[in-house]
Amino acid sequence: MSRIVIALGGNALQTKHSAPTAESQLEVVKQTCKYIADLSASGYELAVVHGNGPQVGQILLSSETAKEVVPPMPFDVCGAMSQGYIGYHIQQALRYALARRNRNIPVVSLVTQVVVEKNDPAFLTPTKPIGAFYTKEEAEKLAAEKGYQMKEDAGRGWRRVVASPMPRRIVEIEQVRRLWDECIVITCGGGGVPVIENPDGTLEGVAAVIDKDFAAELLAEQMNADVLMILTEVEKVAINWGKPDQQDLSHMSLSEAARYVDEGHFAPGSMLPKVQACMKFVRANPDKRAIITSLNKAVEALNGDTGTVVTFA
Amino acid sequence: MSRIVIALGGNALQTKHSAPTAESQLEVVKQTCKYIADLSASGYELAVVHGNGPQVGQILLSSETAKEVVPPMPFDVCGAMSQGYIGYHIQQALRYALARRNRNIPVVSLVTQVVVEKNDPAFLTPTKPIGAFYTKEEAEKLAAEKGYQMKEDAGRGWRRVVASPMPRRIVEIEQVRRLWDECIVITCGGGGVPVIENPDGTLEGVAAVIDKDFAAELLAEQMNADVLMILTEVEKVAINWGKPDQQDLSHMSLSEAARYVDEGHFAPGSMLPKVQACMKFVRANPDKRAIITSLNKAVEALNGDTGTVVTFA
Repeated sequence: MSRIVIALGGNALQTKHSAPTAESQLEVVKQTCKYIADLSASGYELAVVHGNGPQVGQILLSSETAKEVVPPMPFDVCGAMSQGYIGYHIQQALRYALARRNRNIPVVSLVTQVVVEKNDPAFLTPTKPIGAFYTKEEAEKLAAEKGYQMKEDAGRGWRRVVASPMPRRIVEIEQVRRLWDECIVITCGGGGVPVIENPDGTLEGVAAVIDKDFAAELLAEQMNADVLMILTEVEKVAINWGKPDQQDLSHMSLSEAARYVDEGHFAPGSMLPKVQACMKFVRANPDKRAIITSLNKAVEALNGDTGTVVTFA
Repeated sequence: MSRIVIALGGNALQTKHSAPTAESQLEVVKQTCKYIADLSASGYELAVVHGNGPQVGQILLSSETAKEVVPPMPFDVCGAMSQGYIGYHIQQALRYALARRNRNIPVVSLVTQVVVEKNDPAFLTPTKPIGAFYTKEEAEKLAAEKGYQMKEDAGRGWRRVVASPMPRRIVEIEQVRRLWDECIVITCGGGGVPVIENPDGTLEGVAAVIDKDFAAELLAEQMNADVLMILTEVEKVAINWGKPDQQDLSHMSLSEAARYVDEGHFAPGSMLPKVQACMKFVRANPDKRAIITSLNKAVEALNGDTGTVVTFA
């Protein structure tokens, strides 16, 4: 049976409302889970990696807003909380969607730590804005008091920025392995809670954001998955995107993908990491494939009827 | 090998500081995990159920305080978030404490839903206060707008109260079973996220607090554990507690325990549910034992040297 690691983007988890609620998230997750259940009912074994951008942002913002009443939560803890939150919703909704398809497969979420390297160059140039907006004065105070890196954000104020290091090791990988032949496992939520490994062997949470597509790629490699499937808002990856000569791609070889990346076709922080994650997967597994497509086209894409397939050659 | 379900009380997870931080929690958890690792190193197989009272209280309070900025989180979601938060800390700290004892057993937290009955009589008389204090006017507004039950709390203001129904079924029990012969599994955190089962088979989160000692008892029954071990602040259970004729108990039979309960020796919401959970366990398993003791006496108590042991006869 084919084994697939799915990376679920933010749009699969939440409406684009400016202040979305947990209740509205659950409604979106219920819809999303129908498509995931269809994949499962088509005979695939699945593991699910989900993003957590809007959710961890809300948790952090809520914590910062209430800081006079409740001590603010460190960012790694916010990430762990978002895994509980989103994992709970997916496991509740997916179990039901599966049962409706007479597929009584358990669904379980593991709180997952992912090791990053202390010396990852990403820590030198933090790029991911998180949490609330501050005035310049507040930002300087936070930088002095807490050592935060603060950055002006497009005229909207100052925000804390954190690094986006590469995932190196999934701490709970053996338990994912143990479970996934009989369950759908939700793991590495939000890319995993980022931890560094100290010389004495302790793991220690760090304020960072691991790209969930790269975490899904690492999981797919370590699980020896047949397919890495990145689900996003578009049915196919395009070059010359948004221009008159836009071209949707049904297939990219590794070398074609590398050329398109060099030519700057894919937006950093958006399509670029997805394409790079696919490239990494097929480079490590030349006989396998990675797919980028939209949630509602997932089954068709696995059948080879749509989506953008990335292969080694 | 003996299999033990441990129920960890709030004091094992947090200092009694009025506004404890996540960082101070992690320090307490590190100490706690040394004792749990000692238990594991003594050759026992463990599952850990933890309380979440202070943590879920902080999450809810933070969410209510920030409600003008971020829509407040439903209480079931707060519970799921606390499972991610506390589970992450325990799995990080326990893994290290085990490694220091040359015991490289994985530790994993499962997001856990626990089914309660819609018709549980507890829903008629909610008793557990949660979240922020409100004025009478605010309380009446919340009651009218959201259907909350509000109760005056000892002159300190009005608070929302929720029910504490009995746990009936652990949704993810099969995955706990699958993992616990090779891992230490953290599950049913905070008693589990309470869900009801609708006639159409959907599970639905409810605002309720499941007693973590009863959840641990259910887990111990369903896992066929040898020992239910409830860790709390005292080394032994006492009758006539705090009186001149206080008597610490090394052993209670089921009938003795029932008599002490009838005589009102144990405080509701404190020692009473612990004793009741032990009684329930040995009633279901007359050849097994339940133990109530303090964290630092856990190994001794298992050896029969201290603690209060509850047995059928």
